[in-house]
Amino acid sequence: MSAQTLSTPIVSLCGGVGAARFLRGLVGVVEPGEVTAIVNTGDDRIFYGVHVSPDLDIVTYTLAGRVDARKGYGLEGDSYEMVDALGALGHESWFRLGDRDFANSQHRTLRLREGAGLGRVTDELRQRYGVSTRILPMSEDPCATIVELEGGRRVHFEEYLARDGAPDEVTGVDLGEARRARPGPGVLDALRDAQAILICPSNPIVSIGPILAMPEVRDALKRSRAPVVAISPIVGGAPVKGPADRLMRGVGVEVSARGVAEFYRGLIDALILDERDADLAAEIEAMGIRTQVRDTIMGDVAVAQQLAKAALSLAASLR
Amino acid sequence: MSAQTLSTPIVSLCGGVGAARFLRGLVGVVEPGEVTAIVNTGDDRIFYGVHVSPDLDIVTYTLAGRVDARKGYGLEGDSYEMVDALGALGHESWFRLGDRDFANSQHRTLRLREGAGLGRVTDELRQRYGVSTRILPMSEDPCATIVELEGGRRVHFEEYLARDGAPDEVTGVDLGEARRARPGPGVLDALRDAQAILICPSNPIVSIGPILAMPEVRDALKRSRAPVVAISPIVGGAPVKGPADRLMRGVGVEVSARGVAEFYRGLIDALILDERDADLAAEIEAMGIRTQVRDTIMGDVAVAQQLAKAALSLAASLR
Repeated sequence: MSAQTLSTPIVSLCGGVGAARFLRGLVGVVEPGEVTAIVNTGDDRIFYGVHVSPDLDIVTYTLAGRVDARKGYGLEGDSYEMVDALGALGHESWFRLGDRDFANSQHRTLRLREGAGLGRVTDELRQRYGVSTRILPMSEDPCATIVELEGGRRVHFEEYLARDGAPDEVTGVDLGEARRARPGPGVLDALRDAQAILICPSNPIVSIGPILAMPEVRDALKRSRAPVVAISPIVGGAPVKGPADRLMRGVGVEVSARGVAEFYRGLIDALILDERDADLAAEIEAMGIRTQVRDTIMGDVAVAQQLAKAALSLAASLR
Repeated sequence: MSAQTLSTPIVSLCGGVGAARFLRGLVGVVEPGEVTAIVNTGDDRIFYGVHVSPDLDIVTYTLAGRVDARKGYGLEGDSYEMVDALGALGHESWFRLGDRDFANSQHRTLRLREGAGLGRVTDELRQRYGVSTRILPMSEDPCATIVELEGGRRVHFEEYLARDGAPDEVTGVDLGEARRARPGPGVLDALRDAQAILICPSNPIVSIGPILAMPEVRDALKRSRAPVVAISPIVGGAPVKGPADRLMRGVGVEVSARGVAEFYRGLIDALILDERDADLAAEIEAMGIRTQVRDTIMGDVAVAQQLAKAALSLAASLR
C-alpha cells in the first residue's frame, strides 16, 4: 500500500457490530492511535438502574479483542449471575447484560453521577481495555432512538430489537432527541481535522442516522474537505446482520445498496458495494457517488483489513 | 417442651451472624411464622452505588439455609465478578459483595428509588428466599453507626470492620442517627404484641445498640409486659465472633457477661450466660437480672435449638 493511502487522522462513524468488525480491520492497516471512532449513542438506555451504552461497548470490546465473537457483543466468557438474579426478583431481564459488562455499566453510572461526562467515562473504559483508538460518544445528551410501530406504538430501539425481536411493522423512526443533541466532546474537532471520513457498514437508519441527525455533525461533514467514504451494510438486498431491512422499509428507504446511496446522498463522496451488488454501481455513480466493488462480508479480520485498505485508497484517490 | 414455653408471638432483636445462628435454632423449636426479627440497619451503607443491608441479608440468607456457612454472611457458592471488575476500574473493592448478593442490593436500590420502603423490600427478599419468619428493618431512616477512633477519626462501622480490620483504638461509637430515627413499619406493633422478647447474642454496642438507641423502641421495651431475655455474646471475657471486645472497651463497657448485663440493665429481665461464665451468675442476679447458664457456642443447629428452648423457658417462667 502506498504512503498516500495511509493519510491520517481518520474518523469513522460507527454503530455496533458491523462498525466494530470494520474498525478491527482498519486498525490493522493504519496506526490505531490515528483512528477516531465516533459512536452512536441512540441505543443507550438505563437497564437495571445502570447506564448501558451498547455501541460504545461493542466497539471497545471488539477493538480490545475481548468481544464475544459469536454474538458480536458482550464480553467473551462473561457470566450472567446478576441478570438472572434480577430476573428472579421480578425485573424485566430480556436485556442479557453479562456480569463484567454490568460492572462496566455500573462504573459508567457511578462516574456519570459524580459528574464525569460520557466522553470521559468512555475514555476510562477504553484505557482499561488497552485500546489505543479514540472512541467518542456521538453526544453526551440524551439521544434515544424511538421506533414507531403500526398502531401508533412507540418503543425504544433496544425494546424493539432485544425485547420484541425486531418485528416487521415499523412505520417510522423518531430521532428527535438526536436532532436536538450537541455533538460530544472532540467530535467536531475530529471531523474538522480528519483526512478521511469513513461511514462504517452499520445500520444507516438507527446507527449512523442518529449521528447524522445532529445538525452540527451534518454541517461539519458538508464543510469537511476530507473525502467521505461509506461502506454499504446492505448486500444483495438484505442486511448482513440485524433488522436494517425492516427499519429502512419502515422509513421508505429501498433495502439495497442503491437505497443506502440515496440515503447518504449529498453527504458522501464514495460508496463501497459488495460484489453481489456490482450491477448497481453504474446507477450509483450516476448520482455523483464514486463506487468501488469489494467483498464486504467480514468473516475474518483479513477481509476486514482488505475492505479498510480499499476504503482508504478510495478516499486517497478522491483528495 | 411444655405448651407454656411455646407462647407466641416472639420478637427478637438482631444483629448479623450471631443473631442469625440463634434464629435458625429458634425457628426449629417454634412456628417460624410466629417469630419476628427486628434487625439492625446501622451497618447499612451504599457500596458501588447500591444500598447494602448487611444484617438484614445475613438473617434472610441464614434462615433460608443459603448463607455461606463458613463466613457467616454472603450467599453459598456466590461469584465475585462484579466486585473484581469494579475494583479493576478503580473503585474501592474492600467490601466483597458477591454477584447474587449484589443483585439483591441492586434490587433493593431500584425498589427504594421507586418509593418502596426498606420494610417492603426486605419482605420481598424474604419471600423470594422462602423465609416465613417476619424480618423487619429496625428503621427506614438513615441510622449509620459511626465508630470514633483515636486522633478524632470517624468512620462508618463497615469501614471500621471490613476495610480497616477492626483496629483496637476505639474511643466511642456515635449512634446519633439511630437516636433520631423512627422505628420501621411493624416494629412497635411487634414489640407491643410480643409474648417474649429475645435479645440475640449480637454485639451489644453496634448491633443491638442502634435498635435500643431509638427512643420509641426503648419505651416499648420498658412498657412491654413480655419478659425480655438476652443471650450474652461474650463468653469467657471475649466475643464469640467479631470485634465486640474493642467496641465495648471503647465505650467503657467491661468485656464480660457482667458488662453485657450492666449494658442491658433496666431493659432486660433475664440473661443467659455461657457455662464458662457461671461464676458471674450471682453478681448478675444481684443486679435484679435472672440468669441461666447454658452452652451458648452455636457450633451446630442442635445447640442453637437448645439455647432457643432455654430462652423461651426462661421467658415463660418470668411471665
